[in-house]
Amino acid sequence: MTRSTETLVARRARLLGPTYRLFYDRPVHLVRGEGVWLWDEEGTRYLDMYNNVPCVGHCHPRVVAALTQAASTLNTHTRYLHEAVLDLAETLLATMPGELGHVLFTSSGSEANDLALRVAMAATGGTGIIATRSAYHGNSQLTAGASPVLAPGVPPGPGVYAVPPPPAARDGIDVGEVFAAGVRAALGQMAQDGVKPAAIIVDDIFSSDGVFIAPRGFLGPAVEAVRAAGGVYIGDEVQPGHGRTGVMWGFQQHGVVPDLVTMGKPMGAGHPVGAMAARPALLEAFGRTSNYFATFGGNTVSSAVAKVVLDVIADEQLLANAEAQGAYLRAGIETLAQRHEPIGDVRGAGLFLGVAIVKDRRAREPDPAATAAIINGLRERGVLVGGATANVIKVRPPLPVRQDDLDIFLETFDATLSALPHR
Amino acid sequence: MTRSTETLVARRARLLGPTYRLFYDRPVHLVRGEGVWLWDEEGTRYLDMYNNVPCVGHCHPRVVAALTQAASTLNTHTRYLHEAVLDLAETLLATMPGELGHVLFTSSGSEANDLALRVAMAATGGTGIIATRSAYHGNSQLTAGASPVLAPGVPPGPGVYAVPPPPAARDGIDVGEVFAAGVRAALGQMAQDGVKPAAIIVDDIFSSDGVFIAPRGFLGPAVEAVRAAGGVYIGDEVQPGHGRTGVMWGFQQHGVVPDLVTMGKPMGAGHPVGAMAARPALLEAFGRTSNYFATFGGNTVSSAVAKVVLDVIADEQLLANAEAQGAYLRAGIETLAQRHEPIGDVRGAGLFLGVAIVKDRRAREPDPAATAAIINGLRERGVLVGGATANVIKVRPPLPVRQDDLDIFLETFDATLSALPHR
Repeated sequence: MTRSTETLVARRARLLGPTYRLFYDRPVHLVRGEGVWLWDEEGTRYLDMYNNVPCVGHCHPRVVAALTQAASTLNTHTRYLHEAVLDLAETLLATMPGELGHVLFTSSGSEANDLALRVAMAATGGTGIIATRSAYHGNSQLTAGASPVLAPGVPPGPGVYAVPPPPAARDGIDVGEVFAAGVRAALGQMAQDGVKPAAIIVDDIFSSDGVFIAPRGFLGPAVEAVRAAGGVYIGDEVQPGHGRTGVMWGFQQHGVVPDLVTMGKPMGAGHPVGAMAARPALLEAFGRTSNYFATFGGNTVSSAVAKVVLDVIADEQLLANAEAQGAYLRAGIETLAQRHEPIGDVRGAGLFLGVAIVKDRRAREPDPAATAAIINGLRERGVLVGGATANVIKVRPPLPVRQDDLDIFLETFDATLSALPHR
Repeated sequence: MTRSTETLVARRARLLGPTYRLFYDRPVHLVRGEGVWLWDEEGTRYLDMYNNVPCVGHCHPRVVAALTQAASTLNTHTRYLHEAVLDLAETLLATMPGELGHVLFTSSGSEANDLALRVAMAATGGTGIIATRSAYHGNSQLTAGASPVLAPGVPPGPGVYAVPPPPAARDGIDVGEVFAAGVRAALGQMAQDGVKPAAIIVDDIFSSDGVFIAPRGFLGPAVEAVRAAGGVYIGDEVQPGHGRTGVMWGFQQHGVVPDLVTMGKPMGAGHPVGAMAARPALLEAFGRTSNYFATFGGNTVSSAVAKVVLDVIADEQLLANAEAQGAYLRAGIETLAQRHEPIGDVRGAGLFLGVAIVKDRRAREPDPAATAAIINGLRERGVLVGGATANVIKVRPPLPVRQDDLDIFLETFDATLSALPHR
């Protein structure tokens, strides 16, 4: 570590305490971002193949301009009338199926998921929540309790039932049936426990489970089982939403319309904003009795920023780019896989890929040590990625990434894999 | 309502559903803000005597400049090294007693309170939470459950015990002893119920209870009782913090140092940011096991904004202004009270005053109808205030308010009171 890095690490420990974590064996000290590029304090440039939050690219000029314009004009809340929140709501709902008729605004994906779980419980009268075994849905008490990946440090909340994630799609496996069987078992256990189901909440790309989104339609039978038991389906779009998978929403990959949809991370391209869209009937009880209000939710500035992000996604045709570049990226990794045995599997959709790293492709034995070596090796070579699980590398660049950027990634990935110690 | 107002109201119902509420019988459609002034779509100017979020004044040029500068340079999270979050943490902790050694960042006051309650439970091993009867601490499942003002729509969460708010300070009442008696009774009930205490959480100015902050030191005995029973004191500074009462933190008015301090609303002058400061020992268990992370919490842009707000408060001597103008405002309202029988009581500190409206000053019978008439009457005369409770008017202008602004308020308040129908 450089002297300046050491100083910052020490200041963090002193001021922020033991909670915060840093990426990489040698943490990166960033000072500037533009498009898909980041620079550290020594002027070293990094290709950002990880950050989904700056979905339209780092420091997009239209986002900065809209933020500045709005912040210098008026910043206030939804207890006064203003067009900005309505223009945002209208634009957002227009990207969704007609069943989703209302939208509420928050400051983060955690707040959106917390709200969705509250609405689901109010609407169903139930308390049972189904989440996948390594799911992450937020950092509030309710959402952390519905995030089994945090166990045992954070034990599951009351009424939370963890189910196995979808299996990797391969010949001979009916992914939808296998996943639904786990969900039905949880519903059976709820019935035995006298717990009324409220919701199944899934990250529509199953990111922290290891990235699972194929084959199309596999989510259907599980959602059907939950609805038959009186619960609702919360589509957590904090990770897959806003065009990440080549279509606007991850649930479109599944062909099922959620009852509640939550959004966060990319929604403001870094500006703290989140939202929950709902089928109107679900909001009735909660809306009239809860006295729900969020000071920052739907404020004039955040609304303007979230609106321009949607505009940029449309105007720059970033869905098409995510699909096309995602296909190129995936094909490139698959080509590398022919020469590099540690690449066990590439999965995902659009510009959200998971690359499983294994000791032996046939046995599919996870290789966390090689995974960490690759992530750190890429960082040393100027490419930033991260982990989805201990042995799945998450490749998830800003949506405007171009083919020549991906060529840099693929060359660097190749070099990093080649430099792995032989076993 | 104007045509444009009607259109916006209809769009809100259609797009946002039944959850959102508007201020005033004739809602205000705002289009611009500057300092203590707001303008509607017809060019009418309003004196803002209500909004604490734009604490340094609407659209403060230094805040807008810092936001623009940061957003056009880099917006990323705490898993990379960056000075901004550390400079903010250092500046913030320097305003607090030395016992508060660490700070974590969130996107809202609700998130900060949710986090503080989680940390209190982890640190104490308890689940019992004491909150005052009309307290509001947030909109997440955990904080809404600890917000008895939301009942019965939102029932109290498990382990939440509501206690009576402090009584109004008047001759012959030992406010501290009366308040502590309620807290001790709740602790006794917890013991009977087999619930281990985790925390007392109080809004340090008891805003939604009706604004109670006097006499100095009254909180001490209650906090002492909670600590003796193994619980901690969470000072909720979302309303009184950032200089509102003429000192930086509301707890300074009580002469007690909290174990956890939460911040929100004014922290970014409208930008969505919150924080929790902690005694380091309390963070140990939670910090090491919870894997707590907030994507937006402590991001480079929000940190820069929250830092410049602290700088403006210091550079423009807004604490001294809040104290001086608050005293002038209070004296002015007390003078009006000599001629206007409905003013039952003026209380608070600095620029956070509650004015109780009563039918008869001797009997102190609340007058919600007159309260609503005054709030709407002020709005019609170009001054914005709001309600703390059904019969307490909340007067809480941006901190840079000047004496000539307050004279406008006092004249308008006088005229509004004079125009109340005689009974």
